[in-house]
Amino acid sequence: MRVERALPTREASDLLDLVQTLVNREIAPRAAVDEERAAFPRDLFTRLGRAGLLGLPYPADYGGGGQPYEVYLQVVEELARGWLAVGLGVSVHTLACFPLAGYGAPDLREALLGDLIGGELLGAYCLSEADSGSDAAAMATTATPVDGGYLVNGTKAWTTHGGVADFYTLFARTGGSGPGARGISCLHVPASTEGVSAAPPERKMGMASSPTASVRFDAARVDGTALIGERNRGFGIALAALDSGRLGIAACAVGVAQAAMDIAVDYARERRQFDRPISEFQGVGFLLADMATQVEAARELYLAAARRRDLGQPFGARAAMAKLFASDTAMRVTTDAVQVLGGAGYTRDHPAERLMREAKALQIVEGTNQIQRMVINRHLDDRG
Amino acid sequence: MRVERALPTREASDLLDLVQTLVNREIAPRAAVDEERAAFPRDLFTRLGRAGLLGLPYPADYGGGGQPYEVYLQVVEELARGWLAVGLGVSVHTLACFPLAGYGAPDLREALLGDLIGGELLGAYCLSEADSGSDAAAMATTATPVDGGYLVNGTKAWTTHGGVADFYTLFARTGGSGPGARGISCLHVPASTEGVSAAPPERKMGMASSPTASVRFDAARVDGTALIGERNRGFGIALAALDSGRLGIAACAVGVAQAAMDIAVDYARERRQFDRPISEFQGVGFLLADMATQVEAARELYLAAARRRDLGQPFGARAAMAKLFASDTAMRVTTDAVQVLGGAGYTRDHPAERLMREAKALQIVEGTNQIQRMVINRHLDDRG
Amino acid sequence: MRVERALPTREASDLLDLVQTLVNREIAPRAAVDEERAAFPRDLFTRLGRAGLLGLPYPADYGGGGQPYEVYLQVVEELARGWLAVGLGVSVHTLACFPLAGYGAPDLREALLGDLIGGELLGAYCLSEADSGSDAAAMATTATPVDGGYLVNGTKAWTTHGGVADFYTLFARTGGSGPGARGISCLHVPASTEGVSAAPPERKMGMASSPTASVRFDAARVDGTALIGERNRGFGIALAALDSGRLGIAACAVGVAQAAMDIAVDYARERRQFDRPISEFQGVGFLLADMATQVEAARELYLAAARRRDLGQPFGARAAMAKLFASDTAMRVTTDAVQVLGGAGYTRDHPAERLMREAKALQIVEGTNQIQRMVINRHLDDRG
Amino acid sequence: MRVERALPTREASDLLDLVQTLVNREIAPRAAVDEERAAFPRDLFTRLGRAGLLGLPYPADYGGGGQPYEVYLQVVEELARGWLAVGLGVSVHTLACFPLAGYGAPDLREALLGDLIGGELLGAYCLSEADSGSDAAAMATTATPVDGGYLVNGTKAWTTHGGVADFYTLFARTGGSGPGARGISCLHVPASTEGVSAAPPERKMGMASSPTASVRFDAARVDGTALIGERNRGFGIALAALDSGRLGIAACAVGVAQAAMDIAVDYARERRQFDRPISEFQGVGFLLADMATQVEAARELYLAAARRRDLGQPFGARAAMAKLFASDTAMRVTTDAVQVLGGAGYTRDHPAERLMREAKALQIVEGTNQIQRMVINRHLDDRG
Repeated sequence: MRVERALPTREASDLLDLVQTLVNREIAPRAAVDEERAAFPRDLFTRLGRAGLLGLPYPADYGGGGQPYEVYLQVVEELARGWLAVGLGVSVHTLACFPLAGYGAPDLREALLGDLIGGELLGAYCLSEADSGSDAAAMATTATPVDGGYLVNGTKAWTTHGGVADFYTLFARTGGSGPGARGISCLHVPASTEGVSAAPPERKMGMASSPTASVRFDAARVDGTALIGERNRGFGIALAALDSGRLGIAACAVGVAQAAMDIAVDYARERRQFDRPISEFQGVGFLLADMATQVEAARELYLAAARRRDLGQPFGARAAMAKLFASDTAMRVTTDAVQVLGGAGYTRDHPAERLMREAKALQIVEGTNQIQRMVINRHLDDRG
Repeated sequence: MRVERALPTREASDLLDLVQTLVNREIAPRAAVDEERAAFPRDLFTRLGRAGLLGLPYPADYGGGGQPYEVYLQVVEELARGWLAVGLGVSVHTLACFPLAGYGAPDLREALLGDLIGGELLGAYCLSEADSGSDAAAMATTATPVDGGYLVNGTKAWTTHGGVADFYTLFARTGGSGPGARGISCLHVPASTEGVSAAPPERKMGMASSPTASVRFDAARVDGTALIGERNRGFGIALAALDSGRLGIAACAVGVAQAAMDIAVDYARERRQFDRPISEFQGVGFLLADMATQVEAARELYLAAARRRDLGQPFGARAAMAKLFASDTAMRVTTDAVQVLGGAGYTRDHPAERLMREAKALQIVEGTNQIQRMVINRHLDDRG
Repeated sequence: MRVERALPTREASDLLDLVQTLVNREIAPRAAVDEERAAFPRDLFTRLGRAGLLGLPYPADYGGGGQPYEVYLQVVEELARGWLAVGLGVSVHTLACFPLAGYGAPDLREALLGDLIGGELLGAYCLSEADSGSDAAAMATTATPVDGGYLVNGTKAWTTHGGVADFYTLFARTGGSGPGARGISCLHVPASTEGVSAAPPERKMGMASSPTASVRFDAARVDGTALIGERNRGFGIALAALDSGRLGIAACAVGVAQAAMDIAVDYARERRQFDRPISEFQGVGFLLADMATQVEAARELYLAAARRRDLGQPFGARAAMAKLFASDTAMRVTTDAVQVLGGAGYTRDHPAERLMREAKALQIVEGTNQIQRMVINRHLDDRG
Repeated sequence: MRVERALPTREASDLLDLVQTLVNREIAPRAAVDEERAAFPRDLFTRLGRAGLLGLPYPADYGGGGQPYEVYLQVVEELARGWLAVGLGVSVHTLACFPLAGYGAPDLREALLGDLIGGELLGAYCLSEADSGSDAAAMATTATPVDGGYLVNGTKAWTTHGGVADFYTLFARTGGSGPGARGISCLHVPASTEGVSAAPPERKMGMASSPTASVRFDAARVDGTALIGERNRGFGIALAALDSGRLGIAACAVGVAQAAMDIAVDYARERRQFDRPISEFQGVGFLLADMATQVEAARELYLAAARRRDLGQPFGARAAMAKLFASDTAMRVTTDAVQVLGGAGYTRDHPAERLMREAKALQIVEGTNQIQRMVINRHLDDRG
């Protein structure tokens, strides 16, 4: 199916039209070449910030768009349809802004949110470590309180925008001795802080334009004002941010799947074998029907979770479901899209193979799909 | 997950509460015994009619509930959660009323709709024939125009409520010679008409309480007023009815899947092996998480299609998607629910095995899932 | 595909021909009626014993057939193709004889094996208990040593042939206090022993002709000669028996799947829609191709494991794989076979629905498929 | 599971040991770097030729190894486990030699086979064209008979080894006018023939070291002795070659899947989260168990087909099954292997991501898996 969105307001509908135009004209056309060159499109984030697209879910008071998540996520989906590095980048940047916007002291918010939302400052989110991928609470990075500030030591792994971000939203151990969720705080660390450095980006299967890198904090000193939320209470912020972040990944996954779907449908309508368009053979046509059905189901699943969030209802389990289902769908649909194109699909002459390489990342980031199942299982008795 | 519904109005919310109570108290407790006895619960349909639950989607003018499909379908889902024979029966009855309510002449509507909606008269839908299951337009039953009426000859197969219905909404060939969609008309045929008889019900894998039978029309004469819509234009009515009917099947499938889900979660929380509830083993817990995710996705998919219908937008392809996805989900989830219960699940001491036998029907009725894929494939270039 | 077997000897080939004739003439024709009546076909086991088909894998010295497992299992597959209650019954009987044949004292073997193999005495296998389904080592049944014999107390659950067997191969706790694998012994208990009684058979989803019942041992006294193998060392025998028993289940599953496959292919070749046999539509044809592929893969998997057993190589992990894969295949293929037949498949006029109900049992018996995955996971570093 | 092969002879067992050593020492270590550089390892084929590994299935008379397909394919599997470009290259080369070895005139065989088998001359197989991918019989390339030879015109697409091969086994239209299988002949065309040129290799998702290119024949003249088999009867040769070639692809797919399996098991045993190796979590452990089961099933399926071929029995349908099942397995298992490694799996620091990109090719080459299903469906009534 071609996308037809059910949007709650006329304003939202106009917004999506604008985004679609931007994607088709300025974003999608650059994806193939920039990905091949592993070029990070920093300028596009500036462009999005100026167009008001980086702060959509945040209140208008801080220059945000005041849009419900239901709308914001469809914008992310559209961006990801054009180029995952951009859609995911917006989702990650929004995630990095989440603690500040929700828990930050008024002064810090005042000082920063405008630039974050305006695209002047690009964010990254530093939670995982090499030895605590799924078990984030086992982190070893410390932020030792020292006269009026913190001295940060440790290394964060798998940081999207590591090395290109202007600031890091960092989770580190400020108290307690043992491992575990207590004693973890959230800090805002400018990338220019002395002692902060990023390793060369990982050499990934896909998404070369979205750098992922370890970020090292070597006696990096930040002021006491860098603290976001209460000291030693940061882990709750991290989890809340992840719930929202997972919805962003789900939206990205639907965007990638939809892009693959569109390519496959177009190809199957044009390509002829045995004197007929291959879409008329049920072997291909039924495959397309299954792909389309899964994409629609994935979209409705994240939208339903988003509407719950917009209504202030619990949505964590449903966010995990949406992330799980949408990324599995993206993996399957992109793999099948390459199949529909046959040999052509296996070449870089068509974007299908790139989408397939990109989809795999989405089954892993912001909690592997195994972690999502753990989250869902814990909530099976809930209504939320 | 336990169900938590997002309903559009307070009235709808109250309605669902009422239905849930009815299901838990009067419907679900009878399912196991009546299914074993193959007893058709005619009294429950009377009960539902009196409670105003048989005409929910029809205008209040005729005594209908004036509810959007989004709400009506959730009622069907709840009924099917308690007992599929009832949920499906309501869906089929609504399908049988659809042509009359939408295309019937004012007099006929006036004469009948009140009784249909009130549960006095139970309906059945006669479209398929033994030799034209998937290819309905190839039907052979004729309704030959004779002085002021029609003489009906032929046999309809797979009729839900065949033999227990009070009337048949019949599609028969009134014109033209060849096979094909033209020349087919829709007729209202009371079951008491001379020449109308039903074969003994099929001996089915499940749903013994919902009789399925061939209905034979042997020179059965109906008045000219029995015609619904224009003569020879009935096939379009049949297709429109099917689009709506498929949403009903999708809702039934979600109800069955949710029932299985609830049983599996309860069991997995209580049953202990190796000194722990089996839900704590990821082998079971992840299975439950996948089941829950699929059920939620199926529900959101049919709700999205229903909302499109409620807004007057095209929804045929999405109805087909919802029917396909929800019934496949019901089949998988019920099969896995039996697995979670292990040996116990394989016995009639738990409803899981019954739900599994019921789910299979839903992949077949109102267009096999292969037919749904044909419908979806035809619409892949649409936005609808 | 129609089955074409690769058999190691001419003798084996003749044996399979004989079995096929027996199945087609005497076994398959009775399945539908006897299953509906829940009649246990005791006479067929006598018939099989007289035909030499109950002791195929045991040495000729004891009247066995001296056949390799590779051949024996194909016989079981053929029997299950005709009627699962018979194929499974033979597998269970063989399992019940396994400890005696492999570990029994010469006198006991001498006294019994002839009758077991000849079909005079039918066996059952008593391992599981209600509270220790997957965790067999947690059993509570005791066999307390008393002057020259044992006094057995406890209840075994899910016993195939419970109530119709002539003897029970029982595992009970003879020593030690705690739960766990130590202190368990294997005993031969005639069904006629005072204090041995079977509950009414479980009311199952399918396989009504193969009674499954709890067997109660209430101060049932057996002689010391009833001990099979060493005292307190019975759990190892149980596990070894299970490895072989799982191969039997795998073979049964392939038989059931093949039966469903044959029905679906025949139907799809004959049934016409839109003026063509439905097998010519790729929607059906590709489904059949996938079904056929899975059935062949399942067969080759159990045969490969059997050949390893025949060569004296470790085969436990592969037996678990074969059981897992073949029973999942049977579930999927039978469900799809009903789908190929459409409405007709959902009725008892065709055996497809019965096969689907039977297939579900195979995902559960002799270790649920979750247990199989635990076994396989433990062996992932092996070469065996 | 780690591989443990059941080989028919001691000689075969020694052969596999030799190949394994070669793979581990000389082939696997080069894969990552050469693939990144898109370097074709021509020297390895020379090495394999000298080691007697390029002519394994051909008779010793021509310098072949005289090995059954059952053994030859396991060699291909091992090579592909180390590096798909090599395993697939050997399979393609063997395919290119197949017509000559089976149908070539004695003189041509005499002249060429030694060099083909010895690795002096590397072959490619030219069948598909851009407009007739799945429908090979619709080819447009012509080989017009001219005084004592043929003038070849046309372009063949998707030729593995296109541009690096020393000769092309070409199928072209020598007679008849229309499309269709008649009038097609098989010709041996040295790559050095005037008028033969290869386009730059396709830029593929994976397997950069295995060049795939269009090969253009522009009035390329070959002698009459270049004809392999009878004139206008070449299509049958092409089909027979494909049957055998599909077994080669199946073996390659199992090799790729086994490589991914080994990586995933090793990682899951070493990587700890929540204080335990992640293999002990059923979420990972059951995934590994399913992967292992599928790999074993895929291997046994191709081996069974190979044994049929070795016995001179029909094996085309089973070759199609093996290709379909093994390549789908490779796709699933490699995708899941990346998942087991999580973020690490998504980087080029581990071979899992490369294997995943390679696996996709196997679902497409030598008949897409859709074509395989067509082949299987045609044979469903066979016993072959």
